[in-house]
Amino acid sequence: MNYKTILNEIQPTTKEKEQIHTLSNNLIKYLNRILKEQNINAEALLVGSVAKNTFLRGKSDIDIFINFPLSTPMDQLKELGLKLGYQCSEEFNGKAEEHYASHPYLTSCIDGYDIDFVPCYKIKSAKQLKSAVDRTLLHTKYITSHLKEEQKSEVLLLKKFMSEIKTYGSEFKVGGFAGYLCELLILKYGTFEKLLENAQNWNYGIIIDLEDYGTGKNFNDPLITIDPTDENRNVGAALRLEKMVDFIIASRNFLDETNNDKKSDYFKPLNKKQKISTSEILKKFKDRETHTLLLKFEIPEIPPDSLHPQLNKTMESITEKLETKDFSIFKSDYWTDENKLAIFIFELNVYKQSKYIIHEGPKIWSKKSCDNFKNYRGDKLYSIDDLLVLTKERKFKTPESYINYILTNENIHNIKIGKNLKDLIIATYDLDLIENFLSNKNFENYSFKKDFLNFLDDFIYPKQYVKR
Amino acid sequence: MNYKTILNEIQPTTKEKEQIHTLSNNLIKYLNRILKEQNINAEALLVGSVAKNTFLRGKSDIDIFINFPLSTPMDQLKELGLKLGYQCSEEFNGKAEEHYASHPYLTSCIDGYDIDFVPCYKIKSAKQLKSAVDRTLLHTKYITSHLKEEQKSEVLLLKKFMSEIKTYGSEFKVGGFAGYLCELLILKYGTFEKLLENAQNWNYGIIIDLEDYGTGKNFNDPLITIDPTDENRNVGAALRLEKMVDFIIASRNFLDETNNDKKSDYFKPLNKKQKISTSEILKKFKDRETHTLLLKFEIPEIPPDSLHPQLNKTMESITEKLETKDFSIFKSDYWTDENKLAIFIFELNVYKQSKYIIHEGPKIWSKKSCDNFKNYRGDKLYSIDDLLVLTKERKFKTPESYINYILTNENIHNIKIGKNLKDLIIATYDLDLIENFLSNKNFENYSFKKDFLNFLDDFIYPKQYVKR
Repeated sequence: MNYKTILNEIQPTTKEKEQIHTLSNNLIKYLNRILKEQNINAEALLVGSVAKNTFLRGKSDIDIFINFPLSTPMDQLKELGLKLGYQCSEEFNGKAEEHYASHPYLTSCIDGYDIDFVPCYKIKSAKQLKSAVDRTLLHTKYITSHLKEEQKSEVLLLKKFMSEIKTYGSEFKVGGFAGYLCELLILKYGTFEKLLENAQNWNYGIIIDLEDYGTGKNFNDPLITIDPTDENRNVGAALRLEKMVDFIIASRNFLDETNNDKKSDYFKPLNKKQKISTSEILKKFKDRETHTLLLKFEIPEIPPDSLHPQLNKTMESITEKLETKDFSIFKSDYWTDENKLAIFIFELNVYKQSKYIIHEGPKIWSKKSCDNFKNYRGDKLYSIDDLLVLTKERKFKTPESYINYILTNENIHNIKIGKNLKDLIIATYDLDLIENFLSNKNFENYSFKKDFLNFLDDFIYPKQYVKR
Repeated sequence: MNYKTILNEIQPTTKEKEQIHTLSNNLIKYLNRILKEQNINAEALLVGSVAKNTFLRGKSDIDIFINFPLSTPMDQLKELGLKLGYQCSEEFNGKAEEHYASHPYLTSCIDGYDIDFVPCYKIKSAKQLKSAVDRTLLHTKYITSHLKEEQKSEVLLLKKFMSEIKTYGSEFKVGGFAGYLCELLILKYGTFEKLLENAQNWNYGIIIDLEDYGTGKNFNDPLITIDPTDENRNVGAALRLEKMVDFIIASRNFLDETNNDKKSDYFKPLNKKQKISTSEILKKFKDRETHTLLLKFEIPEIPPDSLHPQLNKTMESITEKLETKDFSIFKSDYWTDENKLAIFIFELNVYKQSKYIIHEGPKIWSKKSCDNFKNYRGDKLYSIDDLLVLTKERKFKTPESYINYILTNENIHNIKIGKNLKDLIIATYDLDLIENFLSNKNFENYSFKKDFLNFLDDFIYPKQYVKR
């Protein structure tokens, strides 16, 4: 297949490239000048996809790292980093905002581009690592010195393909392939197509070890890609099995496709086959004959990479607890706008329980244990096999009653809950059947309506994105 | 406690004893005379509880065993046994009926007493055993020579107590304590009360070895009682754990009871506390908020000890299969009149399923397996973790639909079914909700109504019999 047309659409335009490089150069020159003026022993460097020339059209995040010598105290590095960022942002009339990764950094919007100003240590090898961001320098150097000019287009094809099949990005929300991982995969297999050909036969635990460190056997992950700059690190550690599988299946689907027009569609957003209206979604849920509950609540102001694990953990804990109460979950998931709201969805196929359960007591053999149990439980005991048992009324006959029970200050300890979610979920939650929630007049005016319906569509039709 | 009053009620009356012994003597005399006349080398002997004087008032089954030398061919023994039985029955104007244990034998009703005429081999030790009934002779000899006169009353108390707590009888339907086992237990512990005192602290696998054979460790049963006439046999082999437990708990209840009137009640049929009317039973089932199905069908003419295991096996198999189809059984059981009808009862707490299930295919790693699965299952596949799956419509959304499916000639092989039940259950079954079944006008006129309602009452209130 000829990828020219696709590349024409995804490569940055000449104008975009010029603008970005001019801007980055100016920023770096300015920073290095004031570093010299202020007699600070540090150097600003361009890193990341802009430095590597592997960014997609319109996706240029300019990463400027301010490198301090290893002798700099951490506190000083953090303080100077932010200060220099602010200074530069003001000089260029940017709009600055603090963020937090392994330590605080500044993001500023200048001339329509997002610039990250990140302080870091100038290290020569991973052994000198003081904070996680320090690696970026090593990664940038490794890629710029190893990736051939013609392979940069291959990286772009891969990144775009990954984006459209929803496997691109190592942030928790996606759990997919980091940009650096994409670059290493192209280094390994040479081209986008060669990578896909190989990926369709990957096994669990496949090892990619460009520098032949031989350390792959120390990891137990679905995809083990040894960092060329650190033999003890798996670049694919954050990749979820699910996303690796999605990529494998998408590779097969893409390669099995004989129609080139359809192949090109893999580089475009999925054009969903079904209509996504409230009534269509409701019809689909009705067809499933399940009982679907939505739990809506307000979320705290925390970064997405904190928010998502907490939402996931809470949702999974409620799901597990419902199962222990004899309800059966067909499927559960969560949605969030990452700003104000989150909604858990619990789709149940067993959602009503009969009145009694059999509560198991001690084995009958010890008279003393039986007498103790009888004193505690009353005398309505009987035996099943060699167990003393009691038919007692079930505490929770519906999933709603259980959820309402645990979402209180007294009982929230029964579930594992994200620490930042606890208070808000108790104070603001709203539990309703999906049919009531979606039929509510307010829903039609909700700002998140479109995004949420799309999420529900993905819920009903899983893995749409891996195929065109 | 003074057991005199109870013994006065359960010991055979003098008149009854006289009648029985006169009758047995006459029968034996007659049989031995014709054996001599016909020049048959065999001898009729009185065995069993009448011979041992351990029978309860009104419960005298007269067992007459015709002993043949070990050299007699089995065919000849069977033939002569039946022939002599018929001859004797005719002589005494009896009403004869053939039965089958390890070989055929005749039961005849003479002067209101049931007499068993059983041919067997005259063995001196268990090593010479040719058929299971041969042991009876050894058992009778052992008990008559070891059980003291005053212990006979203790055996009577035990048998009556066992009967009223529903643990007496080794037939499959009960799975309880055989008469011989009761006698051995009195030999072991001396008196009824001593036995109960010990039984309340029995452990699983307790060994009772009157002759100190030391063979107990070869068995793995709840109660191991080595047969004094055969070191390789556990007399308690047919005792179900459930019935051993019932006896232990009843022993504790009896001994813990301080009111002697209430203690006496353990020797009388249970006076049920609750009303057993159709409407009361329905009310109870309604309260349980379950879904209770009755499966009624005609049964073949086979002996109870064949019928019960087949009913049990079939009911358990249907129960298990319903569970594999994601239904959940709260409780199941069966009832039969042992003559025409059987009814299975399945009480479900999960009895409705949603429309779809997730059908699991191969792991995704082998493209070939995936392609094969796709060819077979169509292309609506997706992945969960590293499995290829398919959302497909559930075949059985209700337990009724599954039961109706398997009870056909084509699909009956899906369950384990008693071989003699198969054709009749398919041809005659009737499946209905308990509320419909009991509300049916016909039910009020059914001859089995009272017995069946009593069974349902036991179903709702298990183990009523172990307490007074």
